[in-house]
Amino acid sequence: MATASISAHYFPEEPKEPIVNTASNSQSKSKEAIEKLSKKFDARGVYFVADYAKSIGNYIADVDGNMYLDVYAQISSIALGYNNPALIDVAKSDKMIRAIVDRPALGNFPGNDLEEIVGDILKVAPKGQDKVWSGLSGADANELAFKAVFFWYQSQKRGYRADFTAQEIESVMKNQAPGSPELAILSFERAFHGRLFASGSATCSKPIHKLDLPAFKWPKAQFPSYKYPLEDNVEVNKKEDERCLQIVEDYFKTWSVPIAGILVEPIQSEGGDNHASAEFFQGLRDITLKNGALLIMDEVQTGVGATGVMWAHEKFDLQPPPDLVTFSKKFQSAGYFFHDPEIIPNLAYRQFCTWCGDPARMILAGGIGKEVVKHNLPARAAQVGDYLYQKLEALQQKYPKYLRDLRGKDRATFIAWSLENSATRNKFLSDMKNAGINIGGCAEDSVRLRPTLVFEEKHADILVAAIEKVLSTY
Amino acid sequence: MATASISAHYFPEEPKEPIVNTASNSQSKSKEAIEKLSKKFDARGVYFVADYAKSIGNYIADVDGNMYLDVYAQISSIALGYNNPALIDVAKSDKMIRAIVDRPALGNFPGNDLEEIVGDILKVAPKGQDKVWSGLSGADANELAFKAVFFWYQSQKRGYRADFTAQEIESVMKNQAPGSPELAILSFERAFHGRLFASGSATCSKPIHKLDLPAFKWPKAQFPSYKYPLEDNVEVNKKEDERCLQIVEDYFKTWSVPIAGILVEPIQSEGGDNHASAEFFQGLRDITLKNGALLIMDEVQTGVGATGVMWAHEKFDLQPPPDLVTFSKKFQSAGYFFHDPEIIPNLAYRQFCTWCGDPARMILAGGIGKEVVKHNLPARAAQVGDYLYQKLEALQQKYPKYLRDLRGKDRATFIAWSLENSATRNKFLSDMKNAGINIGGCAEDSVRLRPTLVFEEKHADILVAAIEKVLSTY
Repeated sequence: MATASISAHYFPEEPKEPIVNTASNSQSKSKEAIEKLSKKFDARGVYFVADYAKSIGNYIADVDGNMYLDVYAQISSIALGYNNPALIDVAKSDKMIRAIVDRPALGNFPGNDLEEIVGDILKVAPKGQDKVWSGLSGADANELAFKAVFFWYQSQKRGYRADFTAQEIESVMKNQAPGSPELAILSFERAFHGRLFASGSATCSKPIHKLDLPAFKWPKAQFPSYKYPLEDNVEVNKKEDERCLQIVEDYFKTWSVPIAGILVEPIQSEGGDNHASAEFFQGLRDITLKNGALLIMDEVQTGVGATGVMWAHEKFDLQPPPDLVTFSKKFQSAGYFFHDPEIIPNLAYRQFCTWCGDPARMILAGGIGKEVVKHNLPARAAQVGDYLYQKLEALQQKYPKYLRDLRGKDRATFIAWSLENSATRNKFLSDMKNAGINIGGCAEDSVRLRPTLVFEEKHADILVAAIEKVLSTY
Repeated sequence: MATASISAHYFPEEPKEPIVNTASNSQSKSKEAIEKLSKKFDARGVYFVADYAKSIGNYIADVDGNMYLDVYAQISSIALGYNNPALIDVAKSDKMIRAIVDRPALGNFPGNDLEEIVGDILKVAPKGQDKVWSGLSGADANELAFKAVFFWYQSQKRGYRADFTAQEIESVMKNQAPGSPELAILSFERAFHGRLFASGSATCSKPIHKLDLPAFKWPKAQFPSYKYPLEDNVEVNKKEDERCLQIVEDYFKTWSVPIAGILVEPIQSEGGDNHASAEFFQGLRDITLKNGALLIMDEVQTGVGATGVMWAHEKFDLQPPPDLVTFSKKFQSAGYFFHDPEIIPNLAYRQFCTWCGDPARMILAGGIGKEVVKHNLPARAAQVGDYLYQKLEALQQKYPKYLRDLRGKDRATFIAWSLENSATRNKFLSDMKNAGINIGGCAEDSVRLRPTLVFEEKHADILVAAIEKVLSTY
């Protein structure tokens, strides 16, 4: 075999298949634990209570003795499987222990290991990016990127100088222009960029994320809606790209306030695994250059090998590279990569807060990056993804109603499909769990696969068999 | 001695005094390290590069062999001293290692230890608070609290039901009312609540935090500006309370959009260590009750024993207790405490994100809380603070020009004073560093003391001697 099993390398004890406790009260301990937790913490979104001491590799254990093959992986956040021994070594290191107990204000009093920690993160930076700023979550990363964009946008007008006017300094303390200008970030319908107020203003996938919250009045362009299969719909999809790019162009001319940046996911994930072509993204790059705006690629869900390359947008060959690339989830640490030194604000303390990131999570990111490179995991994910995609295509022939618009070809295991409607999708997710698979949805009617990077052909076989078993009862 | 030395208990090897490397190039290694770091990371705010392996207790080491007595403590964030052995034990625990390597999406797949982790945090919750929601930083905690406030505010109108109208569901996807209503959080001039967009809209201490960023148009009331010493200015300060409360009242009647909540620090910290009376805060509580709004106490900097009680607002005897209390910094974990079950949004997934906090930091918070309670550290801080305050009062007689408006009596070591202006203050901070003390400022002209909770009389003596030594040269 050309490639030895990486899951066997890390996890010689990984189960051979899921374990489903078939007793009628198979989730009674989990239910009890949820009820207890609910007295102190909002636990209404809890699927089950896990036992992480027993979870291993691609398998997540619950407190009722079930062992699920996990193709959701903490909403796409576990890169190397549960209890990965290489990461346990990182967690036990003196460096990590110090980062935990002596958490520094990184912008004021960094430790002498910060340069190495940041260097390890940059070793896996997207092509063309050589600097990083650290944050704490995907939403935080995006908002820090917005700040960088707005600082840059206004600085350009001043020639990158810091000569704020007296009027700016006075008005900003009242949250008024010109010190606090009306500026916008353009994002897309069906986008998900986080759930704080500015990131939430850019998010546009589900009402429940946004209802009752004040928001910035920022424009939402349309993201391409392709016809599938792609190879049979080349022309119509090309027209769709052009239509959507025109909408973006138009917004730059018509929106009531200046648009300082475009924010976009390489693949809209939470919003339904909506894909767009390299040409579409190249078009966005061109529009930002033409209009003096910046391009932020939100790689929070797509980053770190998940699509078969380290960063999904690297397949788009953008020239110049995106101005900012945000990350979180699989990297465990969060922040944005950039390359243009002018993205660094023209004064200290503009991009700043007490912690400026978490060195413990940054150390872990370095450890994850190292393993990903060492074992060439994006390429492995690509190989497994191709294998899985072909099996799903075959299954699609048999169950076309339940495997609609299969998407993610050549995107490793970053695969999704749609069902008829929300009710059928939800039933499918639940039936899959009973079949031993922990699996997640996206949009209202779709299923998304987000396994770890150590998910292999043998796991794909189990997954496909479970899907077939479930669908055979429909 | 009634109380044995807690610093000697934790840190038998703690230095007896600062070590200042007096060579002319005493910070050459630090400068070199900053330059190297700057190629990858914005390091312009770096004071010095620390050596955390050598830091211990109240002393922070730098890479040049200096050992500073640290009364700034990572911008008020180190509770129990550097390399505290009790926290090192927590960091080495299996629970922590799992939390690091198997970070769960806490809202979907919590581990079976979450109930205990949350329970440990709640053991030190403010009086009257029995629930918690977790976040990642002070700014994040405040914004999550805003979300809870807005959900609550709109839910009240619907009778805590979730019957969103079709118009709300449609308009929210365009960031427009009624789905995305115009609602405000009232905060105060000179307040600091973080630097993301909504928290930044509530922050009002320095232009540099806010310039060039879009902001919500939220009202800023005036926070009392007292005359010092307080005991000689009782009447005039009482009038100041009344004047400021009237401004808040008026905003509820006159502001163009509904005010859903008041956000206030028990002591405005970054903004200058501005204090207000219990009566002022009781007045705010009354105004929120009268106007159907919620009260958020921002205890990010004041919390966890720093003012001689676990939570600073507990001295105000607010009835009922504040609706939400945000925390971060010394607690290392972040989030908000609350007590009213209706602060839990009426549907799941409204207050939600991938991680919903960081269990590693939550475990550490529990460990910190345990030590704080076990050694009764708030009371010890109160005792040390009284001792220190008296010494500073004596020094004030001698150097009134450089110790103006001494504040923080009966607030443990949460002490501050003003100098003539920004230039003198900055010179003072720098001179103190050369005298072996790492010390921070607040507002433009003030010095704030933010030592750990294991700062004792012997450390206070060193601090006061250094202040006197520095001021004697002015």
